[in-house]
Amino acid sequence: MAVYTEVSDEELNEFVDGYDIGALLSYKGIAEGVENSNYLIHTENGNFILTLYEKRVDSNDLPFFLGLKEHLASKGLNCPVPIKNRDGKSLGHLAGRPAAIISFLDGMWVRRPNVTHCEQLGVALAQMHEAGQDFELSRSNALSVSGWRPLFAMCGDRADSVQAGLHAEIENELDFMESNWPASLPTGVIHADLFPDNVFFLRNELSGLIDFYFACNDLLAYDIAICINAWCFEADDMFNVTKIRALLKGYQSVRQLEGAELAALPLLSRGAALRFLLTRLYDWLNIPEGALVMPKDPGEYIKKLRFHRSIRSVADYGIQT
Amino acid sequence: MAVYTEVSDEELNEFVDGYDIGALLSYKGIAEGVENSNYLIHTENGNFILTLYEKRVDSNDLPFFLGLKEHLASKGLNCPVPIKNRDGKSLGHLAGRPAAIISFLDGMWVRRPNVTHCEQLGVALAQMHEAGQDFELSRSNALSVSGWRPLFAMCGDRADSVQAGLHAEIENELDFMESNWPASLPTGVIHADLFPDNVFFLRNELSGLIDFYFACNDLLAYDIAICINAWCFEADDMFNVTKIRALLKGYQSVRQLEGAELAALPLLSRGAALRFLLTRLYDWLNIPEGALVMPKDPGEYIKKLRFHRSIRSVADYGIQT
Repeated sequence: MAVYTEVSDEELNEFVDGYDIGALLSYKGIAEGVENSNYLIHTENGNFILTLYEKRVDSNDLPFFLGLKEHLASKGLNCPVPIKNRDGKSLGHLAGRPAAIISFLDGMWVRRPNVTHCEQLGVALAQMHEAGQDFELSRSNALSVSGWRPLFAMCGDRADSVQAGLHAEIENELDFMESNWPASLPTGVIHADLFPDNVFFLRNELSGLIDFYFACNDLLAYDIAICINAWCFEADDMFNVTKIRALLKGYQSVRQLEGAELAALPLLSRGAALRFLLTRLYDWLNIPEGALVMPKDPGEYIKKLRFHRSIRSVADYGIQT
Repeated sequence: MAVYTEVSDEELNEFVDGYDIGALLSYKGIAEGVENSNYLIHTENGNFILTLYEKRVDSNDLPFFLGLKEHLASKGLNCPVPIKNRDGKSLGHLAGRPAAIISFLDGMWVRRPNVTHCEQLGVALAQMHEAGQDFELSRSNALSVSGWRPLFAMCGDRADSVQAGLHAEIENELDFMESNWPASLPTGVIHADLFPDNVFFLRNELSGLIDFYFACNDLLAYDIAICINAWCFEADDMFNVTKIRALLKGYQSVRQLEGAELAALPLLSRGAALRFLLTRLYDWLNIPEGALVMPKDPGEYIKKLRFHRSIRSVADYGIQT
């Protein structure tokens, strides 16, 4: 649920007049995106998304986010693209916020992804990694291994209030990750948040990727590790070997993984589980007064973290190398 | 902000297949309506609204609400109309709720209504009253004078926590209203909630009325009284004589008010102010745990109630009869 900033009809009319997309016919706040305010706007030319960037997004990052979508789309990837206004700019200002009008992407996210969805996800992820290789801007990943300890520190010593022993367990994980995180795997632009709600399908065909607001430069295989966590466990937290196989099959049909990347997957997946555990833990322990969104239970990622810790090599995921 | 019921892609695909509106292309929960869950859906045929009726709406009332919109539209009034499914029915069932697909009405509500908007509102309100005359279903107004005392009783004796002396003031108002409420004015189908957010405009032309979920049979002039409260005060709670004149001019260009209706306007407006004061007071005193919507301040309607109480005759509104 996200409409943090109310926009008046008068100011939006004026804003839309700055674009060559026909007159504004209607706009409705939509319950999508957690970081920003989003409206679905209908003009004489069709549907568009209006995004107002809220304080949680660093406005210095906006050229990276908007430019990346343009770049990926120009390479043939299906993703929403910022519309340029009459001055040729993607970024404007509305209701005291940086704001952009983005193309509307048809499709729906699947609540219960199946093996075919996972394989198509793998294809699209690899296509995105390839397409991002020559993108000229870069953005470091604030939520990679070096960012985890400061994030954990912001949780204070309250982790044990969620589960006894969790504080020490996370401390050990941080020590381990900081000592063992791989330094020399292939890097590039990663999505970094490719959960099922950011992947659209139409009639079981992947129709596009959305929400690039965590995108950054990092290890390409770490993006796969995030998807393994987000797509390859069942609702009962059981790991689905068939889904990881399909994901990697799809990925490698576009971009062959190096041996070192494959070998690092258990460690990277364990790290990705720790990363989402930490942000969920932080959100869980810091629910703002009058919160509109109930934070997600960190428990799911405690289980996933322990699962990956039990994996000795990629063969334990059921993958033959 | 209203998405109380989450709908999965699978069940919505199946539901939309029951209609002749093309394949489902996307759906997004929208922050519109307080009583129900609303989604904007995009199909091969265009945009539609999907409404899931939540528990606050009595499902016995749904044939009245849906039938009324069909009836008014058939008389040429611009309002959203329920789409019939392949079985010829307007009402279906989705995600455990009664559900309907409604046509999408372009337009935006004006945050700062001006005199022209008020005049057009008057025209549309009278057109709706005329068009509703031969609607065959009826629904009594649970929020008319007889419903106010029970509603106030549900607030207990906490009114004084909002403003000292408010409890006694409301008691006196209830006594007065129950003794003086007019019995023999023209009746018909009224909208009963025609606030600015339920009236759409496109380029300053009224494009339609929405949200008929308080519609009922009651005194036609009471509907005008509700609009006087909702449209003819400025943000600083000052009454705008020019706006009420425009509202009545627009209304009477379609339907001439009887002398008794005009004479009753101060009393009806005072009653309407009491009605909205009572629901706002109730909501204010009963904020549910984890509420998504901050209730509206009842103070605004305390002031409006007192204003109307000071009016001796319709001439005090600046209206010549």
